[in-house]
Amino acid sequence: MTNTPSVTESSPATARAAEPGEHRPRSLSLLGLGAMGTALARTWLAAGHRVTVWNRTPARAEPLRALGATVAGSAAEAVAANDLVVLCLLDDASVGETLAGAQLAGRDLVNLTTSTPADARAWAARAAGRGARFLDGGIMAVPPMIGVPEAGGYVFYSGSAELFAAHEEILAVPAEARYVGEDAGLAALHDVALLSAMSGMFAGITHAFALVREADVDLGSFSGLLADWLVAMARVAVTGEQKAEKGEDQGDVASNLAMQVAGNVTLLRTAEQQGVSAELLTPYMELMERAVAEGHGDSDGSVLAELLTAH
Amino acid sequence: MTNTPSVTESSPATARAAEPGEHRPRSLSLLGLGAMGTALARTWLAAGHRVTVWNRTPARAEPLRALGATVAGSAAEAVAANDLVVLCLLDDASVGETLAGAQLAGRDLVNLTTSTPADARAWAARAAGRGARFLDGGIMAVPPMIGVPEAGGYVFYSGSAELFAAHEEILAVPAEARYVGEDAGLAALHDVALLSAMSGMFAGITHAFALVREADVDLGSFSGLLADWLVAMARVAVTGEQKAEKGEDQGDVASNLAMQVAGNVTLLRTAEQQGVSAELLTPYMELMERAVAEGHGDSDGSVLAELLTAH
Ligand SMILES: NC(=O)c1ccc[n+]([C@@H]2O[C@H](COP(=O)([O-])OP(=O)(O)OC[C@H]3O[C@@H](n4cnc5c(N)ncnc54)[C@H](OP(=O)(O)O)[C@@H]3O)[C@@H](O)[C@H]2O)c1
Ligand SMILES: NC(=O)c1ccc[n+]([C@@H]2O[C@H](COP(=O)([O-])OP(=O)(O)OC[C@H]3O[C@@H](n4cnc5c(N)ncnc54)[C@H](OP(=O)(O)O)[C@@H]3O)[C@@H](O)[C@H]2O)c1
Repeated sequence: MTNTPSVTESSPATARAAEPGEHRPRSLSLLGLGAMGTALARTWLAAGHRVTVWNRTPARAEPLRALGATVAGSAAEAVAANDLVVLCLLDDASVGETLAGAQLAGRDLVNLTTSTPADARAWAARAAGRGARFLDGGIMAVPPMIGVPEAGGYVFYSGSAELFAAHEEILAVPAEARYVGEDAGLAALHDVALLSAMSGMFAGITHAFALVREADVDLGSFSGLLADWLVAMARVAVTGEQKAEKGEDQGDVASNLAMQVAGNVTLLRTAEQQGVSAELLTPYMELMERAVAEGHGDSDGSVLAELLTAH
Repeated sequence: MTNTPSVTESSPATARAAEPGEHRPRSLSLLGLGAMGTALARTWLAAGHRVTVWNRTPARAEPLRALGATVAGSAAEAVAANDLVVLCLLDDASVGETLAGAQLAGRDLVNLTTSTPADARAWAARAAGRGARFLDGGIMAVPPMIGVPEAGGYVFYSGSAELFAAHEEILAVPAEARYVGEDAGLAALHDVALLSAMSGMFAGITHAFALVREADVDLGSFSGLLADWLVAMARVAVTGEQKAEKGEDQGDVASNLAMQVAGNVTLLRTAEQQGVSAELLTPYMELMERAVAEGHGDSDGSVLAELLTAH
């Protein structure tokens, strides 16, 4: 068994050389058919690839069988069916359980399960020990964005550069493939950093809707205003952080922390007036207060990331 | 003293009728010359308006005097100087202190200090009692966006519709003016809801930069990826929330809470691996867990706003 992708060409239509812009059908195995795994499988099938699927709960494979997928009877069988084996399971523990009884020698494992950098590095080492190449992936999209290039979703990849080069074309079918480095942990680090920022934004959006949901506010126009505001402020804040981390001069401080701390009182009082718990906002406010207490009242928010890092 | 804006035309050039696209110079008083007040004053002066300024710490008025502003010796004097009186102070308490000794009868008060809805309604009532019209404003911009229309900043206004109609043109000089209703509290409610969402997003961005700041990651490309991701996800999340609040069917749940709770473990473990405190992320995670415990594991995040609202 070599690490060259197995392109079994079974019909005259697929046996001829691929023309420019045309993709040769390839085959892969996909383990995990939740919302995301199912979306991935559909796009590979729709693109004419041969997909062997497996899911712990077998019923979830049936709709894909109807679309032409081969359904494996066990995870080990799915792993044995193709050189390229993609995993999209709930979490790292489920990957361990699923691969426990499988023969990995000669396989190209691509793990799209959201992982920590250390999980990814541990899998890279384990895969190497079991004779497989390993690529970790972090999916930056929700399922409706899969197979919809204009939605802007993509996947961070890190780990084996050879594996990525060999399978880049098929990996790019569900969403753009962005390779970020040989260190297998880098995709997860990027993924988790972006997800963490998103989690904060979602918390803020949750609070904002809680504030207005019982007020005399048109939710349609409010939603548009909120999205536009976050879009504008995301660019402002990220640019400020980047300059600060690079030690670049940011010119005059536009929004000093002391002013922001005063503003926080207004945010808290408004939450109280609207009967909304401020629990999602308070830790960031406390971090700002700590920064002011430590003498950073005249600085902007970019000093806060450092305060969050233990030394 | 009438409530008609006083347009004292002092030179032949300004005395002729304004041509289309041309603004007639008007006069106004501005109290508060912090980062924001100074930015406002500069754009009004640059547009040729006559501005009387006052600041508690007089030194901050000097650069504006050099640009042509009249510097008042006291807040009461600044209020007396013009019908249109704009306040941009730290917080509601500072507005109370500043206006304590001023004669408000006949004035058109515009308060751009970030306020709660109840503060704004209280000022509307107080102003009416003292013979003034009142408009509350919430500035959706940072100072560098003031006077830069393409930066997309704007100000929410609510309260006296007559005041807004009389002064809309001059109010729109620093940033677009968006009137949201007669209830004086509505501008503050919009303002604080958007600021609260932004605060959550900033908390998330702070955490994200803390995760990568000591890793082998190019901060320039990371920043671009992070901003693009937040921009894409802001639209996804806000649309989902809006549909949920309107009770619209959202189709299949793309990202169920149970999966997100499993993902939170990955976020927490990554923070630990990178030596970053997870304090900014945990309250939202706990809210999700509560939602799952209450049987919402198959729903998406839009059930959370309701859980945040006390009943
Ligand atoms: N949905 C999104 O918005 C999104 C976005 C980016 C990344 N992701 C990532 O994609 C991965 C899958 O997410 P999803 O939305 O598809 O989640 P999901 O709909 O909840 O599906 C979870 C999948 O994991 C399987 N699984 C759970 N525990 C298992 C175990 N112990 N052994 C074997 N299989 C197990 C489930 O099998 P059963 O059917 O038997 O339960 C199911 O196939 C996660 O890592 C998630 O973070 C999701
Ligand atoms: N900067 C922004 O990014 C931004 C964005 C949107 C809205 N805003 C809002 O704009 C308002 C002003 O913000 P800023 O950035 O200009 O803040 P700032 O730079 O900290 O300036 C605060 C101003 O308030 C004055 N002040 C404070 N306490 C006072 C008191 N007790 N009596 C009289 N004056 C007092 C200060 O006078 P001294 O000079 O004497 O201290 C100064 O003029 C705030 O409500 C803020 O929320 C700011």
